[in-house]
Amino acid sequence: MALLERNDTGAVAHLRMNAPDKLNALSDAMLAALQGEFDALAEDRSIRAIILSGEGKAFCAGHDLKEMTAGRQAEDGGKAYFKDLFDRCARMMTSIQRLPQPVIAQVHGIATAAGCQLVASCDMAVAAEGTRFGVNGVNIGLFCSTPMVALTRNIPRKQAFEMLTTGQFIPATRAEALGLVNRVVPPESLAQETAALAGMVAEKLGAAVKIGKQAFYTQIGMPIDQAYDYTGEVMVQNMLYRDTAEGISAFLEKRPPDWTQ
Amino acid sequence: MALLERNDTGAVAHLRMNAPDKLNALSDAMLAALQGEFDALAEDRSIRAIILSGEGKAFCAGHDLKEMTAGRQAEDGGKAYFKDLFDRCARMMTSIQRLPQPVIAQVHGIATAAGCQLVASCDMAVAAEGTRFGVNGVNIGLFCSTPMVALTRNIPRKQAFEMLTTGQFIPATRAEALGLVNRVVPPESLAQETAALAGMVAEKLGAAVKIGKQAFYTQIGMPIDQAYDYTGEVMVQNMLYRDTAEGISAFLEKRPPDWTQ
Amino acid sequence: MALLERNDTGAVAHLRMNAPDKLNALSDAMLAALQGEFDALAEDRSIRAIILSGEGKAFCAGHDLKEMTAGRQAEDGGKAYFKDLFDRCARMMTSIQRLPQPVIAQVHGIATAAGCQLVASCDMAVAAEGTRFGVNGVNIGLFCSTPMVALTRNIPRKQAFEMLTTGQFIPATRAEALGLVNRVVPPESLAQETAALAGMVAEKLGAAVKIGKQAFYTQIGMPIDQAYDYTGEVMVQNMLYRDTAEGISAFLEKRPPDWTQ
Repeated sequence: MALLERNDTGAVAHLRMNAPDKLNALSDAMLAALQGEFDALAEDRSIRAIILSGEGKAFCAGHDLKEMTAGRQAEDGGKAYFKDLFDRCARMMTSIQRLPQPVIAQVHGIATAAGCQLVASCDMAVAAEGTRFGVNGVNIGLFCSTPMVALTRNIPRKQAFEMLTTGQFIPATRAEALGLVNRVVPPESLAQETAALAGMVAEKLGAAVKIGKQAFYTQIGMPIDQAYDYTGEVMVQNMLYRDTAEGISAFLEKRPPDWTQ
Repeated sequence: MALLERNDTGAVAHLRMNAPDKLNALSDAMLAALQGEFDALAEDRSIRAIILSGEGKAFCAGHDLKEMTAGRQAEDGGKAYFKDLFDRCARMMTSIQRLPQPVIAQVHGIATAAGCQLVASCDMAVAAEGTRFGVNGVNIGLFCSTPMVALTRNIPRKQAFEMLTTGQFIPATRAEALGLVNRVVPPESLAQETAALAGMVAEKLGAAVKIGKQAFYTQIGMPIDQAYDYTGEVMVQNMLYRDTAEGISAFLEKRPPDWTQ
Repeated sequence: MALLERNDTGAVAHLRMNAPDKLNALSDAMLAALQGEFDALAEDRSIRAIILSGEGKAFCAGHDLKEMTAGRQAEDGGKAYFKDLFDRCARMMTSIQRLPQPVIAQVHGIATAAGCQLVASCDMAVAAEGTRFGVNGVNIGLFCSTPMVALTRNIPRKQAFEMLTTGQFIPATRAEALGLVNRVVPPESLAQETAALAGMVAEKLGAAVKIGKQAFYTQIGMPIDQAYDYTGEVMVQNMLYRDTAEGISAFLEKRPPDWTQ
């Protein structure tokens, strides 16, 4: 059984982290497996949406603390290993936003520390009722500074600060109210609701979603005039796609589009 | 009947888009009419608040797809026309923030694509119960990349991403919870509630609102120390207005201010 | 009785503004007293969390308008004094974020203008039911341009704009929904609930909270790749603390950590 399983259904790829005994910790092997699949999916034009879930009791409990502790045996006390680890982790997290396809976290159980960062890094998230979210490294003396990067780009400032300095969990309903997840559903509907959301995205014109997703994260930190200059060019490019011309014509003629993609 | 009607009531100007048969689409003519009125209002010191609404079943359904499709007949397939169109549209949208007076969207029916961008671009918005908001260009293969600029500066990231990639509408209550509108009111009270909000703004000292609105959008993207340096200067300038001195004195003396403006 | 009282309970310092007859206005003396205590606390390694509250009917009603009006007697009409005042005020507000310890506002009654800015500038805030928040300088002709800097970094854009241009108060429950405060509690539990939150933060490893709080505000405005480069270094540094190694080992061995701090 692979550490990370991939199952495709039509244009939707489903990645399932499969280390339930470690609560799907982001070990070196898990980080490499995720990076490998994301790199492959970036080139896979048959896939238009991606679901990321975890096997067992938790979505993901963050870094592998045993492996990190073992890293301290190195001559430098682990310094080089830790630097490399956080670099690899950040690369994996930001790869999600760089993928052409939307990535949806399907979350249950707990999502803590780098596991909560993983939810925050996905484009969208669906959570089962009862899921708990935390950035609780502070409880063991390791402030969740890298998870904070993703978290503070999802939820308001004071609420993020509280989670980071108290180490307390928040329930799924609170995560939804704050903006960390898109919707909360009964556990028994989680897979189905996430698949429905992915399916809705996958039936769109892939080229439009791809150019749009890229523009989403590129424009978000720009001053507004620069953002409009940039996205205006994106709109022109999008308008000139053959399939977009067809999509608009079909809409005006009240018929379904005949897309080549 | 003009494409864009303007009616002034005291210090409040009310602009009403008047192309109900096109759901007030932002055609070349509508964009020019809006730009023309905004340019005129920027110089109109008698006006202290502006309401923008739409005639007919919808507030605004976005770009005029028929006109855009006709633009494809040009030798370059429409490329130059589209570039110019999105430039004009962005200029109109950002003019709203550059106006000295607050602009309030009075929204009913639907606000989609560039129509939703128009709501997001206004300083405030009041919506009738039952109004639906969407950035649904993706449904016809045209990702709402320019509307996204305004939308992502109003609502949280994951919720904006969902609207953009699913093309689904959200109801007014959800728009309010996310921050896209200030309040939701019964349809029969929409005009009255929006007028009340505009009236409340219009009775303030115009010079203070003007300098404050300009500072609002200027400081919002600055690092905090730079934002304080800048707004500190704005406060000094504001303190030195004769009418502000009078406003503060009147407050301390528990009497109404005798403003010259 | 001092203008600003400090009482320490264990590792929690409680600062209480004590000018109830002026609704704890941020007079020159109050600003100096706050700055003085913050400067002292920045060097005080025995303190791990700070509570800021106000004596009397209000948390804080903003600047001291009588003192400001007296400042107009200077030859330049007060220009130099006002510039210096807003500089001192901004320095005090940003000192809160620069402190190594989390600062929690304990808010009751009203928090208006620079008093609302003070709440927004704190890392967290607990409010009593019935507390009202406003940035209502516009009512007297002085737009709350400096309070706006803190406010717009706490709550969504359209809601901040409304508060600033209408001068209307919002109740505590609305402040909580918008992100301006972390929680709303019955007045009779305010002190206890704030102390409990401070206590929760104070029992963490101080060095981790310190490095994390600094990273929080440093990374928040960075592009994401830069934010990860920076926080990755912070994580490495944090991992190499002796007490963090102990914290992680203790967690893995299911025993309480034996921290030196």
